[in-house]
Amino acid sequence: MTATVSGRTGPPTAAAPLGVAVLGYSFMGKAHSNAWRNVNAFYDSSAVAQRVLVGRDADRVAAAAGRYGWAGSATDWRSVLERDDIHIVDICTPGHLHAELAAAALEAGKHVLVEKPLANSVAEAELMAAAAERAAAGGTFAMVGFNYRRVPALALARQLIAEGRLGTLRQLRIAYLQDWLTDPAAPMTWRLRRETAGSGALGDLASHAVDQVHFLTGARVASVSAQLRTFVPERAGGTGPEPVTVDDAVWSTLQLDSGAVVSLEASRCATGRKNALQIEVYGSRGSLRFDLERLNELHYYDAGAPAALQGAARILVTEESHPYLAAWWPPGHTLGWDHTFTSQAADFLAAIAGGVQPEPSFADGLAVQRVLDAVERSAARAGAAVELPAGTHTTPQTAATAVEPHR
Amino acid sequence: MTATVSGRTGPPTAAAPLGVAVLGYSFMGKAHSNAWRNVNAFYDSSAVAQRVLVGRDADRVAAAAGRYGWAGSATDWRSVLERDDIHIVDICTPGHLHAELAAAALEAGKHVLVEKPLANSVAEAELMAAAAERAAAGGTFAMVGFNYRRVPALALARQLIAEGRLGTLRQLRIAYLQDWLTDPAAPMTWRLRRETAGSGALGDLASHAVDQVHFLTGARVASVSAQLRTFVPERAGGTGPEPVTVDDAVWSTLQLDSGAVVSLEASRCATGRKNALQIEVYGSRGSLRFDLERLNELHYYDAGAPAALQGAARILVTEESHPYLAAWWPPGHTLGWDHTFTSQAADFLAAIAGGVQPEPSFADGLAVQRVLDAVERSAARAGAAVELPAGTHTTPQTAATAVEPHR
Amino acid sequence: MTATVSGRTGPPTAAAPLGVAVLGYSFMGKAHSNAWRNVNAFYDSSAVAQRVLVGRDADRVAAAAGRYGWAGSATDWRSVLERDDIHIVDICTPGHLHAELAAAALEAGKHVLVEKPLANSVAEAELMAAAAERAAAGGTFAMVGFNYRRVPALALARQLIAEGRLGTLRQLRIAYLQDWLTDPAAPMTWRLRRETAGSGALGDLASHAVDQVHFLTGARVASVSAQLRTFVPERAGGTGPEPVTVDDAVWSTLQLDSGAVVSLEASRCATGRKNALQIEVYGSRGSLRFDLERLNELHYYDAGAPAALQGAARILVTEESHPYLAAWWPPGHTLGWDHTFTSQAADFLAAIAGGVQPEPSFADGLAVQRVLDAVERSAARAGAAVELPAGTHTTPQTAATAVEPHR
Amino acid sequence: MTATVSGRTGPPTAAAPLGVAVLGYSFMGKAHSNAWRNVNAFYDSSAVAQRVLVGRDADRVAAAAGRYGWAGSATDWRSVLERDDIHIVDICTPGHLHAELAAAALEAGKHVLVEKPLANSVAEAELMAAAAERAAAGGTFAMVGFNYRRVPALALARQLIAEGRLGTLRQLRIAYLQDWLTDPAAPMTWRLRRETAGSGALGDLASHAVDQVHFLTGARVASVSAQLRTFVPERAGGTGPEPVTVDDAVWSTLQLDSGAVVSLEASRCATGRKNALQIEVYGSRGSLRFDLERLNELHYYDAGAPAALQGAARILVTEESHPYLAAWWPPGHTLGWDHTFTSQAADFLAAIAGGVQPEPSFADGLAVQRVLDAVERSAARAGAAVELPAGTHTTPQTAATAVEPHR
Repeated sequence: MTATVSGRTGPPTAAAPLGVAVLGYSFMGKAHSNAWRNVNAFYDSSAVAQRVLVGRDADRVAAAAGRYGWAGSATDWRSVLERDDIHIVDICTPGHLHAELAAAALEAGKHVLVEKPLANSVAEAELMAAAAERAAAGGTFAMVGFNYRRVPALALARQLIAEGRLGTLRQLRIAYLQDWLTDPAAPMTWRLRRETAGSGALGDLASHAVDQVHFLTGARVASVSAQLRTFVPERAGGTGPEPVTVDDAVWSTLQLDSGAVVSLEASRCATGRKNALQIEVYGSRGSLRFDLERLNELHYYDAGAPAALQGAARILVTEESHPYLAAWWPPGHTLGWDHTFTSQAADFLAAIAGGVQPEPSFADGLAVQRVLDAVERSAARAGAAVELPAGTHTTPQTAATAVEPHR
Repeated sequence: MTATVSGRTGPPTAAAPLGVAVLGYSFMGKAHSNAWRNVNAFYDSSAVAQRVLVGRDADRVAAAAGRYGWAGSATDWRSVLERDDIHIVDICTPGHLHAELAAAALEAGKHVLVEKPLANSVAEAELMAAAAERAAAGGTFAMVGFNYRRVPALALARQLIAEGRLGTLRQLRIAYLQDWLTDPAAPMTWRLRRETAGSGALGDLASHAVDQVHFLTGARVASVSAQLRTFVPERAGGTGPEPVTVDDAVWSTLQLDSGAVVSLEASRCATGRKNALQIEVYGSRGSLRFDLERLNELHYYDAGAPAALQGAARILVTEESHPYLAAWWPPGHTLGWDHTFTSQAADFLAAIAGGVQPEPSFADGLAVQRVLDAVERSAARAGAAVELPAGTHTTPQTAATAVEPHR
Repeated sequence: MTATVSGRTGPPTAAAPLGVAVLGYSFMGKAHSNAWRNVNAFYDSSAVAQRVLVGRDADRVAAAAGRYGWAGSATDWRSVLERDDIHIVDICTPGHLHAELAAAALEAGKHVLVEKPLANSVAEAELMAAAAERAAAGGTFAMVGFNYRRVPALALARQLIAEGRLGTLRQLRIAYLQDWLTDPAAPMTWRLRRETAGSGALGDLASHAVDQVHFLTGARVASVSAQLRTFVPERAGGTGPEPVTVDDAVWSTLQLDSGAVVSLEASRCATGRKNALQIEVYGSRGSLRFDLERLNELHYYDAGAPAALQGAARILVTEESHPYLAAWWPPGHTLGWDHTFTSQAADFLAAIAGGVQPEPSFADGLAVQRVLDAVERSAARAGAAVELPAGTHTTPQTAATAVEPHR
Repeated sequence: MTATVSGRTGPPTAAAPLGVAVLGYSFMGKAHSNAWRNVNAFYDSSAVAQRVLVGRDADRVAAAAGRYGWAGSATDWRSVLERDDIHIVDICTPGHLHAELAAAALEAGKHVLVEKPLANSVAEAELMAAAAERAAAGGTFAMVGFNYRRVPALALARQLIAEGRLGTLRQLRIAYLQDWLTDPAAPMTWRLRRETAGSGALGDLASHAVDQVHFLTGARVASVSAQLRTFVPERAGGTGPEPVTVDDAVWSTLQLDSGAVVSLEASRCATGRKNALQIEVYGSRGSLRFDLERLNELHYYDAGAPAALQGAARILVTEESHPYLAAWWPPGHTLGWDHTFTSQAADFLAAIAGGVQPEPSFADGLAVQRVLDAVERSAARAGAAVELPAGTHTTPQTAATAVEPHR
């Protein structure tokens, strides 16, 4: 297959790198900037150039651009889409802006990376997936930033499952627990308003968890039974108390079309848990355990080992043979949370260079959105199961790591 | 209050101890025998005498009686109930026999301890609770053996919650995970037949978890949304394949009348988990974490500590100031699973000696049974919530430890 | 081989059990009493009868005897040695009495179990080992109570090493850490006086660690470099401040004759460590890790596993196939600290019944004592290495578990 | 105080940044390049420009320079020292080159950062410390790269100790364990030859550990008792077997002038340990525990907490109030190994900007070297203690973090 990069002939080089624009300069903008600044240092990716950081406040975005290594800054995203030297648009804004920005960028022939969740609603996500499908036909690609697919331990987990080491998967237990809303005095933010965030722990945290279900198992969610709860219904806004219009926590049981059952919960009120995406996978031949707070570790239990020696092995996922690790440091030299974004950028660049659909695609993002929607519908019906139609599955999945690290 | 022990004047002494009969001599019979053999060595309880072990097979029960320290054995439980030197009947048979045996023993004026779960159905449990209430009026007491109430770490957890150290409880996460049915080649047993066991992971494992919800929070389950699953529907019986008629795993979300939400699941197919009753309690001011596989430890997170010092403290629950521990060994000298039965016997004896209702009562056992029943009804309705009527609550609960250890 | 039990014909039976006397009724007396009370319930050992508990204070020893299940009590140990119905004498007194009591008991034809360490000096230990050797020739046996040899996880560790799973052993790291002397206000006890205790952390804690070196590796200590320290030189005694004449902590490096090197330290001032005997064994093909505070677990790293899957497996040592476990409970039902004494009693009884030398023998206890002595001599020379002569090795070691549990 | 940066008036700006040269482009060169590329994105440091990467192989250093973000590359370090646009020289070569390069760079008026250990011998280190002292008088500064001082958890540990939270320090247990030499088939490298590496685990690993002793306690090593061992004396070189002339492992006991005792060992043959710098600090009022394989965590035991609640708290050191963390990500978003170099660069820049001596200084590096030397001398004398003269102490230490992160 001939890899053709949109609008250009031949692969990008240091002399003619792929120009990148990031929209948004706060938490996610900082994390994505870090990825673009570092990706060429670790991966044999296409050369990239940090062209422009885009935000609403001219002074603040200019200052951020200076810090984070951008050649310039801008406040008008439309003009950025018109620039010939921009090949990639990376969207790190709140969720309610994703659909418009992504559609416009794809329309303008830019490859698009959108921070998760893909959108605030199924309707938006469907529009985006359709736009992405059209663009892909012309060699312009879109990806959604479920960065935890690039945690080496989770990529390894997927490999072990795909190799059959766990046998038939029966149960998954997934919880994504944080505690930044434990204190009722924690103030309002855009993340606690339905119109900007879409939902609460559901969209912010459970979306990662649902994507991991898809990523790890390759199966589809067939039905959902769920509950939602807002523990603190009102918080201090700029001008007095303001209602919290999203959930603080979510509980769900997912039936997969493979026959496995998943318990999946998320909370921002789990006192003492800072960023605990905890995943357990139980199969007929083995099991896996992971906690994002110790992201360099994967625990693997092999039920085929001699009975007296069976035990969950703590694999320190820092070996050269582990996914992504050859790009980084010697064994035992651990990675941090932000390295996942760098690897994500590398995978995105590799797919673009290869002319193949990067994963997770907008269709994958839509699949997550459908599950989140089913959660809300089931919760509205006191937990009664909501079926998800077949045929709305994610794209077929290929190898976890397609990129070549420096040797 | 004058403590009067049924049929006797004055407290039991070494010269005139309370006579005990245990019905059943396999796993639970062995564990309860161990408790009766050792309780007087650790606690200043009433003196007890191991009079008789009862079972159906005369030779095997005689052999077991010899090993486990019983003065004699018997096959006819009715004749045992007629003996004047038996004051306590401890029922360790499969669940379908609990109701008849317990009712007859109470009728005969014996104090009764019944291994959990109380019964195989709500109807049986209601009869038993009624019988226990009648007997208690005459100073004869009944208790159900949710022995994990006597795990020192869990008794400590309850204390910390009762003291308000966690603030308002918001969420509990409870899972009871075992893996002895992971292998499809594991054979049929009475535990896998509905007529003898009532249910599977639900009655065997989730019952402990539900009792802990009651024990730790003091709240009532108001509604239940649940799912059940049998992963291996057929297993090798004595004469060929036999259908498994109970669940392998259960998932549920419980709404408590206090406003807290509990995710509670149990499985016998959780590969690599041997006896993992894992409990997490999240409150507005702190949280707790426990795992039965490390039963001497309780993790306590104090959200009121200085921000830079907050962290879950691993408390090794072996200090003299911890519940039950003064009876045992110096700090750091850990207890095992079976010690919970000895402490349970001590609590039972203390309540009898004090003329007060031992806990958990049959009413507490019935409350658990109602939740298990609601789980089955919700599962039959695809997870739709089932409400539990108020006014069916457990008895008010007093201090966790009423017994005096040797000093 | 025909097993002949001293002074008796045929094996002991329930009708004619082996009579046991325990000397000492405080901490160790309680623990050993517990073992004798329970050994026949778990192991197919010779039947034993708890005949007499011996102590200096008539009232207190009588009370203890009543609690712990003894038929009687006594204050005069010499008269106990004259009784025909006593076959086993179990010595749980402070160390300075071990030699006299053990020699007299052996002389009287009693099998002898002595709590560790064997003695307070090499000279005493040599006398005891000689006495034991003489007695053994006549079928009367002596054992020293290094009970941690009966921790299932450590017995498993020894098996794995003996099977070659770790390859060539290179390094061991052993620390035995407690903290009951952290507080300078902790009062004087016999354990802090040289004349009663012999030494401090050295004899009390490091002795266990040294015995584990022998037990796990089968090698001999060839040279020792060590340091001792007393952090709190004076403590409150009954009549005012009293000098502490033993060490609070010890550090040592041991060269084994096998070529391995051991770092071994012990402390009673390791704040936060309650009973942390931590053992790490590193070999050319694998490693092991153990902590007595989690005594049901052994961590095993197999360097021969596929590179991407290597990790230390947490083995929950509760499987029927693990040492000692068939006697106890199903998988996942953990043991406590005190169970090691019950298994120790079973091993002792099995050796007596089989007419073979129980392990660890007094010679093994002497070997430990020689190392402790070398530690003191090296410490007196500012760490300069002290050589230990060859030919003073422990007895050859046989299988870790020789006893049959009930099936 | 007026901060004056060598040869420049006023602080560096983006327009006139501090020019940096790194010497060496393999493992450490990559890590240091990463730090210079990222430091301005996280810290309000002086602006830096990555001017030149220096190495012996022109093609390979040019390729590395391209990847790691350098403006250019060079093979002749002397010419680099002559450039006016180079203000900082960062030396990442093997140890035997440190002294010459550092002295020349300081002579040329460049600020110098040298990767640890400072040198291969005390003599070299003394020359370097003297050169650094002369340069400092003129406002040119030198620092040695013990990057683990910038692990947030260790910086926090130092704070807690300095605040007196542990009371009087009594014992430290430090081990630095790796396993890349476990396999006898692992080949020769410059790190295994005395002439290039100076020593083995001693200089490479134990040097970090010794620096942590200085950093955490502020005390001086007064005497040393130690052992060295080479487990695999010969390895495959380019032209056949070659003798390993450095140690594989080291064991030592250090007496501090404060009265505390440190056990310190290091190994490259600790099978299963990848990068385990494990530090335990025991004081009269509390204790700390750290493992570099879980570098975001610090375990703190407060012996002043209520008895029933005492336990080692696992602090996830990712809060804004923790050292360095305000520069990075929200709570729970963990850092990796390489972030320590970025923070190290920030601290170095802050000291330069402030005109103060950066820490650890060459004098601090010399202090470490003296301890390493004493280890070798004690080992040569079979462990006999070697005294270290007073008056050779490290520079007084100031606050752990002097730099301001972006807010």
